[in-house]
Amino acid sequence: MTDAPLDAIEAARRPRIAIEAVSPTVDGGRFPVKTVIGRAIVVEADVFADGHEVLRAEVVWRPRGEGDWRRAPMAELPNDRWRAAFTPEAIGRHEFAVEAWWDDFGTFRRDLTKKREAGLDVALETDEGLILLEEIASTAPQQAAKALADIILATRALGVSDRVAALLSPETHAAVEAAGHRAFLTRSAAYGLEVDRVQAAFASWYELFPRSESGDPTRHGTFRDVIRRLPQIRDMGFDVLYFPPIHPIGKTNRKGPNNTLTPGPNDVGSPYAIGSPDGGHDALHPELGSLEDFRALVAAAADNGLEIALDFAIQCSPDHPWLKENPGWFKWRPDGSMKYAENPPKKYQDIVNVDFYGPDAVPGLWVALRDVVLFWASEGVKTFRVDNPHTKAFPFWEWMIEEVKLEHPDAIFLSEAFTRPKVMYRLAKLGYSQSYTYFTWRNHKAEITEYLTELTTTAPKDFFRPHFFVNTPDINPYFLQTSGRAGFLIRAALATTLSGLWGMYNGFEICESAPLPGKEEYLDSEKYEIRIRNWAQAGNIIPEITRLNRIRKENPALHSHLGVRFYNCFDDHVLYYGKPRFAEDGSGRIEDMVLVFVNLDPFTVKNAPYEVPLWEFGLPDHGAIAVEDLMRGNRFTLTGKEQWIHLNPNELPFHVWRLTNLSGVA
Amino acid sequence: MTDAPLDAIEAARRPRIAIEAVSPTVDGGRFPVKTVIGRAIVVEADVFADGHEVLRAEVVWRPRGEGDWRRAPMAELPNDRWRAAFTPEAIGRHEFAVEAWWDDFGTFRRDLTKKREAGLDVALETDEGLILLEEIASTAPQQAAKALADIILATRALGVSDRVAALLSPETHAAVEAAGHRAFLTRSAAYGLEVDRVQAAFASWYELFPRSESGDPTRHGTFRDVIRRLPQIRDMGFDVLYFPPIHPIGKTNRKGPNNTLTPGPNDVGSPYAIGSPDGGHDALHPELGSLEDFRALVAAAADNGLEIALDFAIQCSPDHPWLKENPGWFKWRPDGSMKYAENPPKKYQDIVNVDFYGPDAVPGLWVALRDVVLFWASEGVKTFRVDNPHTKAFPFWEWMIEEVKLEHPDAIFLSEAFTRPKVMYRLAKLGYSQSYTYFTWRNHKAEITEYLTELTTTAPKDFFRPHFFVNTPDINPYFLQTSGRAGFLIRAALATTLSGLWGMYNGFEICESAPLPGKEEYLDSEKYEIRIRNWAQAGNIIPEITRLNRIRKENPALHSHLGVRFYNCFDDHVLYYGKPRFAEDGSGRIEDMVLVFVNLDPFTVKNAPYEVPLWEFGLPDHGAIAVEDLMRGNRFTLTGKEQWIHLNPNELPFHVWRLTNLSGVA
Repeated sequence: MTDAPLDAIEAARRPRIAIEAVSPTVDGGRFPVKTVIGRAIVVEADVFADGHEVLRAEVVWRPRGEGDWRRAPMAELPNDRWRAAFTPEAIGRHEFAVEAWWDDFGTFRRDLTKKREAGLDVALETDEGLILLEEIASTAPQQAAKALADIILATRALGVSDRVAALLSPETHAAVEAAGHRAFLTRSAAYGLEVDRVQAAFASWYELFPRSESGDPTRHGTFRDVIRRLPQIRDMGFDVLYFPPIHPIGKTNRKGPNNTLTPGPNDVGSPYAIGSPDGGHDALHPELGSLEDFRALVAAAADNGLEIALDFAIQCSPDHPWLKENPGWFKWRPDGSMKYAENPPKKYQDIVNVDFYGPDAVPGLWVALRDVVLFWASEGVKTFRVDNPHTKAFPFWEWMIEEVKLEHPDAIFLSEAFTRPKVMYRLAKLGYSQSYTYFTWRNHKAEITEYLTELTTTAPKDFFRPHFFVNTPDINPYFLQTSGRAGFLIRAALATTLSGLWGMYNGFEICESAPLPGKEEYLDSEKYEIRIRNWAQAGNIIPEITRLNRIRKENPALHSHLGVRFYNCFDDHVLYYGKPRFAEDGSGRIEDMVLVFVNLDPFTVKNAPYEVPLWEFGLPDHGAIAVEDLMRGNRFTLTGKEQWIHLNPNELPFHVWRLTNLSGVA
Repeated sequence: MTDAPLDAIEAARRPRIAIEAVSPTVDGGRFPVKTVIGRAIVVEADVFADGHEVLRAEVVWRPRGEGDWRRAPMAELPNDRWRAAFTPEAIGRHEFAVEAWWDDFGTFRRDLTKKREAGLDVALETDEGLILLEEIASTAPQQAAKALADIILATRALGVSDRVAALLSPETHAAVEAAGHRAFLTRSAAYGLEVDRVQAAFASWYELFPRSESGDPTRHGTFRDVIRRLPQIRDMGFDVLYFPPIHPIGKTNRKGPNNTLTPGPNDVGSPYAIGSPDGGHDALHPELGSLEDFRALVAAAADNGLEIALDFAIQCSPDHPWLKENPGWFKWRPDGSMKYAENPPKKYQDIVNVDFYGPDAVPGLWVALRDVVLFWASEGVKTFRVDNPHTKAFPFWEWMIEEVKLEHPDAIFLSEAFTRPKVMYRLAKLGYSQSYTYFTWRNHKAEITEYLTELTTTAPKDFFRPHFFVNTPDINPYFLQTSGRAGFLIRAALATTLSGLWGMYNGFEICESAPLPGKEEYLDSEKYEIRIRNWAQAGNIIPEITRLNRIRKENPALHSHLGVRFYNCFDDHVLYYGKPRFAEDGSGRIEDMVLVFVNLDPFTVKNAPYEVPLWEFGLPDHGAIAVEDLMRGNRFTLTGKEQWIHLNPNELPFHVWRLTNLSGVA
């Protein structure tokens, strides 16, 4: 037989209390959960032990690097589940855990109460209670120990009935609480929590090429030109103004209009071909202006309530200074040439990629890239849209983003990875605050419902913030190529109400859609040439976008993709969903709800029956509810669950309503 | 700006390849997955990296403590999922992990092939291939390096076209494989795997009190009496013969018949009141026989293909020697008395509990309890039914079971925890091989379906083996109290076909059901008195039980609860399910299927429409399939999906069929 008393001593020190299935967590704690400041985090866990003793549990949390834990008591739910909520007070990385312990005195109180109620003799129990109090006092802080000693002395002198009253008194309870006795105290693993500023989850993005902002097709636009445009963008309700790269553009293999390989001498090239004798990723394209001009733009944007987002595109024109200065950061072919970049089926003859594991790349390249981001952050740019992160090493992103956020916890990174789902999710886990999604290609009722259900109810809900772009310089969606103006309104309504983050690339507001024939790309793409537009042209949807952005700001339920509920509208082309806003008292009561109908068919008027979600408000099927049409401003009352909706794409292919319980209406 | 090149060097060493969502795992690897010898384990994982390189992956595994990993290549499934299966070769704890790496030469081969097929000039590519081979050779074992050097030398001398052929040749491929070059090799965490003997998952248990085996109500039964009974139990098809405690029974507070507190001088008491001056947990109740007698019984059982299971009940009669020898293992009251045990609402006035954290309990009590189990294991008993484990400290179980299994990897522990679901599951995670379940109280179609779906498709499937007892000395199910003989047949059919593990307490086969009025207990319970029965009495269901046990043995699909599929029978009282047996070629093809219909209503004849699961065999709705009625022995062919079933509880309230594709019938 073995004989391992030491093992047994070790084993007896292991947690007596089980803490399982802590939520939210990401990959069992390998990656942090994401949240934004001001939003309550609801933590749950299974907490239980052997036997029938009274347990207690707390959620504990703290900013990373701090010593003291904040604490919130957990409430017991059915089936050994416990829950508490807390609201972080600062941005930056936090950690949280669940603590649980045997409440010895709570068990004693419960059992004593039961026995007294059953009329049993409890003289011996009161002796046991006093012994327990002595034990609790023995490890208590001085003041609490003194208070308990007084209680013990006084109680011992009493008769049984008075002893019971003293042992069950609020004073004794308080003294025990102050003693901090926590038998079999167990703490779960600590889980990371990334607390971002609000704009990481809720923001409206507008994308433009500064060089197109001169208003004159013969003149290259500048940062100063962009400053003139800021009030117009602000008035549409956008928060973030995002530029494709603004760095010097290489000449070698420069692209001509429509991605041709034979540019003329005046062709401006793709801004993604970063680097020339004028500098690399930390320099500015000279024709856009100086660093002073850029600083003026950043300041003017802030004055207009806008922040600037830059494009972090880790690739180089063959003219980038790094190729000569740091040849060991690249992969050269045996003949001294280099392969150009590809993201199949796209070919980028004007750029080459760095090699993250090249002979001199570690740590030189990694540090240099991080320092590029830190440089722009020091210039007041805190939001970075990152180009094709899925073709760069995962460990680099995790390290770089953490390094930047240590210095700039307000930094935001948007992943532009249009690739396989698990790769997109991995990038979010590694630190990306936001992610481009498949939204751009989801046009049908079933596929939108399925995708949103995945994003809002499965694992990604805790780490992946979808950014719904309706178009990009690279994506002229097939749907919009043939949908006409109604299609633009449909996509704008979906993006603005389904996600806390939405974005548009300019031209969308004037329903630009001319394609490169047969491709999902724009004709005369701004990636390769300067484009001047007339924003006031007939049929523009600027008023609708402005209204939608205002509705977003005014309705907290629209500040996240989370919480969407799809309801029954009996037409396969009408998507119908609600976003409830809950009472802050934690009761689960719905204060009000944004209700959205979208006719996904841009060509057909729809009349369809639907169900008013009266039950969500605790109302019967024949109940009545107050409605405000947030697009048109009118108000009315709906009575009864079954109603019909009318959606005319020639007018407005969607409705956005706010439902409020009539009893809550003044 | 920060400057952390060392951090970057560290970060660059982190895995470039993501290995996520490894399955099966239990609580992220905190606990081992369970399997039995001879069964293939299917391991899956998400494996992916940045970029578009060719990846490879393997499952690696080994018995705990061994150095070398066994390996199985993983196949790539859609959506970055990978899969491999392996079959452990020994019982005992194992560990497994997933390894993945960049297949540099595989990527080169893929790209070279594509370019050659596109008719491109690949001269430079062949140079690159030779450089890659040199790199691979530089870290290869001597022989492989030599082979590669020869290939490089020979290939370099060739023209482009022959170089391509040489680089893509099977010989070069083989030489590269032998070199073992694995770029960015990544290994997941290692996950535990408990490989048990088959009986941990598949066994039929029979429970009796040896003291009732004399055949004479005036004589206390003995182990020798049990030996006489063995052939009868074996002939019914049972594998395990389980006894309630066989240790000396205390006199203090001994229970009388029907759990009364006033026993007469000849009352035998509850065997759960363990311990007397004759000894404790490692002694035998003198009236049952000597240790020699017990050894003779264990040997005779083995000769009959039966193994003995003992009851490990950690509690003591007040007369147990431990109370005097080790008072520090118990919790005493201030007046020197001790509380008796309770498992609300049940009261056990004749027993007291040990205190796992009492003043001298660690390590003394823990080691003593472990040594009790080791003692009986050394006497040839390898299966232990553990009484009320949920009222004993979790860490004790994890430590004790691991200690015992290190010495006796064939040990099996059955958890008798009738408590909350998460506690029951926790005990299984901690090491219990088998668990009593809620089956005993699941009588309706919906609740049986729901419970089996939970057990077979959610987390417990990987660690919780349900043991379906139809009755126990403590549980005389309400259903059986009024169901008559048909009810016994119903419960036997369910238990034997739904679970790999089933058990019955004697009396079930003669449809005993007289209750203590109003309670879920037996009248004149054998727990408190000797009971002599006539096994041959009219109406007994021994032939049906015998047949069911034989069907279990002959049909591997019935050797586990896993794999059950519920089908449509359009009657709310007819439960209808299949258990497929798959082809061993891994194709997913079903060889045959056990199909079970159970009329859950013991009083009503049912005629109900149902669907023959032709689609499971790849057959059309009008297809035909061969059926063997395993209870009656007749054979027939069913043609067409829609059929009617007839179930008469006065004859047999269930059918057990085997379906075989007609093409597979000789």
